[in-house]
Amino acid sequence: MKRREPNGSSVQDLGEFGLIRQLRRLVGSADKSVAVGIGDDCAVLRGRDPRRYYLYTCDPVVEGIHYREAAAPRRVGWKAMARNLSDIAAMGGRPRWAVVSIGLRPGTDVRWVKQLYAGLQAAAKQFGCRIVGGDTTHVRHEQFVVVALIGEVEKSRIVLRRGAKIGDSVMVTGTLGGSWRGKHLSFIPRIREARWLVTHFPVHAMIDLSDGLSNDLQRLAEASPRGTAFEIHAADIPLSRAARRSLAAALNDGEDFELLFTIDPRHVTALRQKWARRFRTELTEIGRVVKSRHRVALIGRDGSRKRLLAAGYDHFATH
Amino acid sequence: MKRREPNGSSVQDLGEFGLIRQLRRLVGSADKSVAVGIGDDCAVLRGRDPRRYYLYTCDPVVEGIHYREAAAPRRVGWKAMARNLSDIAAMGGRPRWAVVSIGLRPGTDVRWVKQLYAGLQAAAKQFGCRIVGGDTTHVRHEQFVVVALIGEVEKSRIVLRRGAKIGDSVMVTGTLGGSWRGKHLSFIPRIREARWLVTHFPVHAMIDLSDGLSNDLQRLAEASPRGTAFEIHAADIPLSRAARRSLAAALNDGEDFELLFTIDPRHVTALRQKWARRFRTELTEIGRVVKSRHRVALIGRDGSRKRLLAAGYDHFATH
Repeated sequence: MKRREPNGSSVQDLGEFGLIRQLRRLVGSADKSVAVGIGDDCAVLRGRDPRRYYLYTCDPVVEGIHYREAAAPRRVGWKAMARNLSDIAAMGGRPRWAVVSIGLRPGTDVRWVKQLYAGLQAAAKQFGCRIVGGDTTHVRHEQFVVVALIGEVEKSRIVLRRGAKIGDSVMVTGTLGGSWRGKHLSFIPRIREARWLVTHFPVHAMIDLSDGLSNDLQRLAEASPRGTAFEIHAADIPLSRAARRSLAAALNDGEDFELLFTIDPRHVTALRQKWARRFRTELTEIGRVVKSRHRVALIGRDGSRKRLLAAGYDHFATH
Repeated sequence: MKRREPNGSSVQDLGEFGLIRQLRRLVGSADKSVAVGIGDDCAVLRGRDPRRYYLYTCDPVVEGIHYREAAAPRRVGWKAMARNLSDIAAMGGRPRWAVVSIGLRPGTDVRWVKQLYAGLQAAAKQFGCRIVGGDTTHVRHEQFVVVALIGEVEKSRIVLRRGAKIGDSVMVTGTLGGSWRGKHLSFIPRIREARWLVTHFPVHAMIDLSDGLSNDLQRLAEASPRGTAFEIHAADIPLSRAARRSLAAALNDGEDFELLFTIDPRHVTALRQKWARRFRTELTEIGRVVKSRHRVALIGRDGSRKRLLAAGYDHFATH
């Protein structure tokens, strides 16, 4: 990825991070109704309840990019909803209302669309979310599903990307890597785990792993105060079976939709114990928040220290 | 369009109306938080303010369907936002917060994307709406922009599709037809007019004209109580210059984004006078709400009476 963009550069040259950074500038500063705008998992909005925020997010799923044409439509619908639910989880919230926009080729079998909707509805219902509206349109080539979701979270429980404190333990749920072999279409968004976490422990910073640990660590680091860095131990990263023992897969494959968060290390023992009684999902300490200029460092099994660059999934990279 | 759908029928066979009717069933009934679900211009949600509703809507804009590839990106962005603003207007609301999902080919010039965003932002800003988040993704073929929008409206001022009363006058703002010659990319959503209307007059039912007068009259009629029908006078339909004197264009072209509403005829004179002092936009009485089994009738210049069928824009029809 280039650092400077000459006139006429493409979105691929700039990359998704670079593009979003530029667009954020165009949108300008928000008013008082917006507690957190572009740049976290959800926008954070002030409604009229002084004790709660609304969370607002929107994520597209495109044929050939996020799923193959032959994928079961029920699973495509599940994924389209679950990706958004995962964004609400990342801030400790509860999902409330969804709207859905679908682009369909005119020749698409109505049963395909009904199955897609059944998947959307199943994921929404399982987490207390209501589909309240939407629109369909004709497309010529790639079908798409865009879900927009409103959630809610108590002001006392919201977790942002930017709260990491030096000395924190870095924790991750589940196992990572190889999601594209199947999990990406059927993963369980970590709504329940996140709600339990923010209710029982003071979580400092959180993100959901959508674009690979390396990419999303970078995001967490960039959102943190200057000089706040992440030191991750390669040996501690929980590899999924689908990652097939590849650390690179766990770092870069993306679409794990697990939670990555930081918490005061004094809470880790109690957290592990209570977690194990409550959930079957793994919970692993993979590193520390440290004071350093280098945003993310990976400590190898041999003790070597490497700077970890964002190498995960980029929606504009060719792959 | 067929009435019964055999197994294996396509979304084109079923049509957009038919498809949405089927999907609505799949979503099931809503809970108390949803005052109005699928089937109006926006979903109507109960927040925690006892005097207000939230409005929630989402609309896709697809290259080759809603705009040509060569269209100025600023106008594409304007349209994508304005379509959603028009849905908020149709219920008498004020827009508050938008999120945007964009599908881009990797080779797209970054300047194109910035211009698109400038258009989105210009439309949002003009009507007091904030863009608070979004996502971008890679596509191979057709680019798309999906805006989801949250608005707000006082419970005392909300206008639904279903409120038409027998005897009402049927009114329309602006002029109709030929929008595809240019207006569809630069139209002004009728937020100000709608807010003024619901503040000064008891409007019974309202919809924005997105799919052609014939289609949207049908929607208004279907939302009304059984036996409530619309009688429209062909001679009174305000033709735009772009319609080039074609009544069919005004009935069926779509994308006018004007307001169609019903009001007690005793208010019409006062409404016209006050309107003329406040707005330059035309306001025309085009018919009456009557008691009839036939949902929509068109009265010709010669006094002939025809049943008007939904013949406007269908996103799944081939054209």
